[in-house]
Amino acid sequence: MVVKVYGPAYASTKRVITCFVEKEIQYEVVDVNVFKGQNTTPEYLQLQPFGVLPVIQDGDYTLYESRAIIRYYAEKYKSQGTELLGTTMEERGLVEQWLEVEAHNFQPPLYDLVVQVLFGPKLGVVPDQKRIKEDEEKLACVLDVYEQRLSTSKYLAGDSFSLADLSHLPFGQFLMTGLGKEYMIRDRKHVSAWWDDISNRPSWKKVLQLYPPAV
Amino acid sequence: MVVKVYGPAYASTKRVITCFVEKEIQYEVVDVNVFKGQNTTPEYLQLQPFGVLPVIQDGDYTLYESRAIIRYYAEKYKSQGTELLGTTMEERGLVEQWLEVEAHNFQPPLYDLVVQVLFGPKLGVVPDQKRIKEDEEKLACVLDVYEQRLSTSKYLAGDSFSLADLSHLPFGQFLMTGLGKEYMIRDRKHVSAWWDDISNRPSWKKVLQLYPPAV
Repeated sequence: MVVKVYGPAYASTKRVITCFVEKEIQYEVVDVNVFKGQNTTPEYLQLQPFGVLPVIQDGDYTLYESRAIIRYYAEKYKSQGTELLGTTMEERGLVEQWLEVEAHNFQPPLYDLVVQVLFGPKLGVVPDQKRIKEDEEKLACVLDVYEQRLSTSKYLAGDSFSLADLSHLPFGQFLMTGLGKEYMIRDRKHVSAWWDDISNRPSWKKVLQLYPPAV
Repeated sequence: MVVKVYGPAYASTKRVITCFVEKEIQYEVVDVNVFKGQNTTPEYLQLQPFGVLPVIQDGDYTLYESRAIIRYYAEKYKSQGTELLGTTMEERGLVEQWLEVEAHNFQPPLYDLVVQVLFGPKLGVVPDQKRIKEDEEKLACVLDVYEQRLSTSKYLAGDSFSLADLSHLPFGQFLMTGLGKEYMIRDRKHVSAWWDDISNRPSWKKVLQLYPPAV
């Protein structure tokens, strides 16, 4: 069964596809253009009632929310491809902890920066400089905690690459290219080494090459 | 081994304690007063470097982020107390999906309402009426999706109460009492029945009784 994944041009969908590549799961993509409103058609809302990306269809099983999808497939194909959930229950606990930190501390200010700086102008919205400054300050505090953590641990949840690291790739990439804020990573020695490690994985390089970003 | 859990007066910590009660896990609470800055002392930041609640200590294992903690314990004590992760991998996928919806769609506007209406005045901040209106509109759209889902499914992830439902209790409670916006639940027939069901569980009633809210 080939899994259908919707909206490969968008960052959160890339989280899912990178997991599929790491786990050697067969998939096919279905394009969805948010700028043309294809995420709010009745057909799409049947699959994802909040009108956001991504969603997957696996036979008659439909699942949305990227971090739920990657947990499901990392567990379902536990013995295939890269182990992404840790090898003990305590390691998995830490994978869950850092997945939550990514979702609640790392992504929100970075998502807002992306909306303000990259999407805003495309939609005719003037970027709010005060908000951009606040977002960057919040993100800097978060990355300071990461710097400390990564000075004693090769990856966020321990000695091995996991979903917690993988989950940072799509929005972390915006710092390095679209937003031109690579100094936020480069100014922090351990964060910088970690970023080089995870962003050079063949899975991420393949996903970036196959699916250019929407903006 | 009794698990130590920090900050029982606060909503996110109640998510963890409710899980402990459902899973029949022994715990003890450690008070942390955010209004006195006890979440930013060097000792606390050693446990939780972002300075937020909750955090648990279980022997020499420390874990933070409430939704990571409840996943860890629901898995660790899978055969004890209430089953909270579904009985098949596909059910667990849906539990994960609705946990993510709670975290990314339900909680953010509601958290902002709580900060604006309940915490703000205590900290000398004048509530922003425009923002309050926007939060309520966003939350109404989210609850409309819930109404549709709960018209065909007894609980969010399927036929059984799970972490996905449990996770809504602490902030859902603010709608019913502190914020005085119970109509947002009562105006939706299936959401209303679901709320009555989950909020009348002995676990939640016990947690509410034992640990009065901070505001």
